[in-house]
Amino acid sequence: MSQLDELVQMLGRQYVLSGDEAEPYSVDWRGRYSGKALAVVKPGSTEEVAQVVRWCVAHKVPMVPQGGNTGLCGGATPDASGQAIVLSLTRLNQIRSVDTDNDTMVVEAGCILQSVQQAARDADRLFPLSLAAEGSCTLGGNLATNAGGTQVLRYGNARDLVLGLEVVTAEGDICHGLRGLRKDNTGYDLRNLYIGSEGTLGIITAATVKLYPVPVAQCTALLALSSIEDAVSVLSAARKGFGAALTGFELIAGGCLAGVVECYPQQRIPFDGESAALPWYALLELSDSESAEHARERFETVVGEAIEAGLVLDAVIAENITQSKALWHLRESIPLAEKAFGKSIKHDVSIPVSRMADFVRTTNAALQASFPGIQHVIFGHLGDGNLHYNVAKGQAFTEEGLLAKQDAVYELVHNSVHQFGGSISAEHGVGQLKRDALPRYKDPVELALMRRIKQALDPHGLMNPGKMLAS
Amino acid sequence: MSQLDELVQMLGRQYVLSGDEAEPYSVDWRGRYSGKALAVVKPGSTEEVAQVVRWCVAHKVPMVPQGGNTGLCGGATPDASGQAIVLSLTRLNQIRSVDTDNDTMVVEAGCILQSVQQAARDADRLFPLSLAAEGSCTLGGNLATNAGGTQVLRYGNARDLVLGLEVVTAEGDICHGLRGLRKDNTGYDLRNLYIGSEGTLGIITAATVKLYPVPVAQCTALLALSSIEDAVSVLSAARKGFGAALTGFELIAGGCLAGVVECYPQQRIPFDGESAALPWYALLELSDSESAEHARERFETVVGEAIEAGLVLDAVIAENITQSKALWHLRESIPLAEKAFGKSIKHDVSIPVSRMADFVRTTNAALQASFPGIQHVIFGHLGDGNLHYNVAKGQAFTEEGLLAKQDAVYELVHNSVHQFGGSISAEHGVGQLKRDALPRYKDPVELALMRRIKQALDPHGLMNPGKMLAS
Repeated sequence: MSQLDELVQMLGRQYVLSGDEAEPYSVDWRGRYSGKALAVVKPGSTEEVAQVVRWCVAHKVPMVPQGGNTGLCGGATPDASGQAIVLSLTRLNQIRSVDTDNDTMVVEAGCILQSVQQAARDADRLFPLSLAAEGSCTLGGNLATNAGGTQVLRYGNARDLVLGLEVVTAEGDICHGLRGLRKDNTGYDLRNLYIGSEGTLGIITAATVKLYPVPVAQCTALLALSSIEDAVSVLSAARKGFGAALTGFELIAGGCLAGVVECYPQQRIPFDGESAALPWYALLELSDSESAEHARERFETVVGEAIEAGLVLDAVIAENITQSKALWHLRESIPLAEKAFGKSIKHDVSIPVSRMADFVRTTNAALQASFPGIQHVIFGHLGDGNLHYNVAKGQAFTEEGLLAKQDAVYELVHNSVHQFGGSISAEHGVGQLKRDALPRYKDPVELALMRRIKQALDPHGLMNPGKMLAS
Repeated sequence: MSQLDELVQMLGRQYVLSGDEAEPYSVDWRGRYSGKALAVVKPGSTEEVAQVVRWCVAHKVPMVPQGGNTGLCGGATPDASGQAIVLSLTRLNQIRSVDTDNDTMVVEAGCILQSVQQAARDADRLFPLSLAAEGSCTLGGNLATNAGGTQVLRYGNARDLVLGLEVVTAEGDICHGLRGLRKDNTGYDLRNLYIGSEGTLGIITAATVKLYPVPVAQCTALLALSSIEDAVSVLSAARKGFGAALTGFELIAGGCLAGVVECYPQQRIPFDGESAALPWYALLELSDSESAEHARERFETVVGEAIEAGLVLDAVIAENITQSKALWHLRESIPLAEKAFGKSIKHDVSIPVSRMADFVRTTNAALQASFPGIQHVIFGHLGDGNLHYNVAKGQAFTEEGLLAKQDAVYELVHNSVHQFGGSISAEHGVGQLKRDALPRYKDPVELALMRRIKQALDPHGLMNPGKMLAS
């Protein structure tokens, strides 16, 4: 215990947790992964993070960086050995500065995403990163995993929202890269290397993020469609007609909406007759920089043309914010309804948009051939080529029966994703969940380069070992 | 010579140039850097590139990758030793595929940028990368240097236009990363590491690039301004009013326009009286996805409000494409007029937009204090925080007198850039030109990480040695 005493001396007793106090940090929020930490260590500044890292290097103690502990792949959970510390960034929670002329903001890693969004709004700006866990996830975690979310189509992934980083390296040096520059060609792109590296190369302690103007008006519609092919054609027309004002294009299988209204009878599919029972729907969103009238007019032109062309069979355009929220609520209730019907097998995949229809048809057929009666739960960000291609028990399986098939289902779906030139992790990362699948699908040359980079930047192998790459 | 015989056998006699034939490849296009190549080698496929690299590794021969040889920092010119080969990518010039549903295109590194733009246009899409050398530079060179250009404000730098890369590593392996995915979180971001690495880590042989809808209409205006502060306020208003439709915001010092019309009397400053002699001008461009009328209306609203607020003193809005081209021609003639008045000292710098006015004021004063009568030639992409902050002889210096001060001027300007949180290379890269300045301004931790990455990915030190990092 003399080891921990040194940390206590460094940070203060209340910032070094062990035993029962450490337990909540050693289990992920869904309870899928659990481990044991030597201690949970909470430095209060970048300099303290560097001190803790140097202490870890001196004592050969592995580190598991953790933000809001909301990850979906077990990337922030320690292993069972009890040898690693959890290095919690939650005390680094300051908005260091806001620069409205430069449209940038310097934010510490432990800031809750919602607070970052709010700080931007307080300055009459938009920080567009937005995802389900925003009330508890931290910006550092978002960057470590290169989070996606609902605004990627217009604003890109988390990495696209960052201009500069402050990083504590795996040896405890502070890398001062908080530049607020939109152009800087003076060397290798370390920023993008740390972003998405899941804490395996170093620890992001702060970031300079981009701010955008707040849209003046938004329009939302639910479109009823007969095929994914038609959805892709409508997406293409919306890109052309709306330009960068297109901020959302979500694809939803008819069965998902049916599930939501079955589970939550107070919600309804806003169509009647045949239109309420079509195989596919799309949620379309436009964000306008002019006026509500202009947004509406523009929206009706594009949707009208898609109806005339026979691509859209029916459409409901939200008349006001309440109706718009109701449409988004339908979409956002899908995962909850899915959960209410029992555990399901989830895949966070991406596919080139042009091959999406073919991927779904082929993979659905292969799943039915191998697991007759299995139920498809398909929805996602079509605009980004990102599908949550999930599988539920339906009537044919029990929950246990389904989970017994989990590995076989993963393999079938991931093999198919690979054949269609897709990715087995679109926005959730690798962590522990997909670590062992990665070598099956990643180009071996690329994997070898990753290992070299890991070795070069984390020579002691102490940064989040066993995540992303097997140690 | 038996060494070269092996290459001749590999590629054919006509693709291994030496002696006089090799000379044009050993001098940069401006004649600022010259060296000597062992040979110029022109592989015709990715597999042949890999073979050549493996041959170089086996024989310990350094490689200098080269595209259109249009770089501005000597990054593609061999040193004087005659030991390195120039590895020309110009035969890899195929557009491999165009996918309009996915809005992507697979392009080989040796394609001329203009051909890439044309291939996109042929598919009714826009590939937005655009810069002065587009008729002869290659996409591979654009990516190796992370080129900027005129469309960065809306579409980002070259790296932002790429989804996937095919790379031949420094050991001659082919890394197959030509993914057409907008979301892919399965490992370290190797793509962004190779982009901007100036051929020092490996050789980009092909890329999957993003395509965009072609704008329906564009509007251009020249605004007359009394200060950079006002220009920054107008930029802010344009960002808010136009959203992502804002595609250009160029700042031009009054003296630059005066120089253009003095040099090219057929051009004119489109203002009369006082408005023709103001200290600053801005070229504003909007790209609309709806109609010419809509673009015009929108444009007039924002410009009108800026005039009412006293931020813009006068404005000329182009009435048609001819007038719009004339305004852009004024801007694009600045470097030519500058050249006509004699050699100048050029700086390609970026500064946070919020500090731009202060930077220019402070640096101008410091230059006048040290070099009385020196002439300022200032223009650039204000929207990106990127200034071409150049210095000319004016009446006070002879050409030789100015060039004798070159190193002192560089140092003064770069020191000031550094103090204002800027970058000494915004869009041109490092190459040979800024290699030795880099350690003075780059965070030493960052520089050390760069060296580790270089060592890890280019263990034999044969990839473009002496560029970016001293070897």
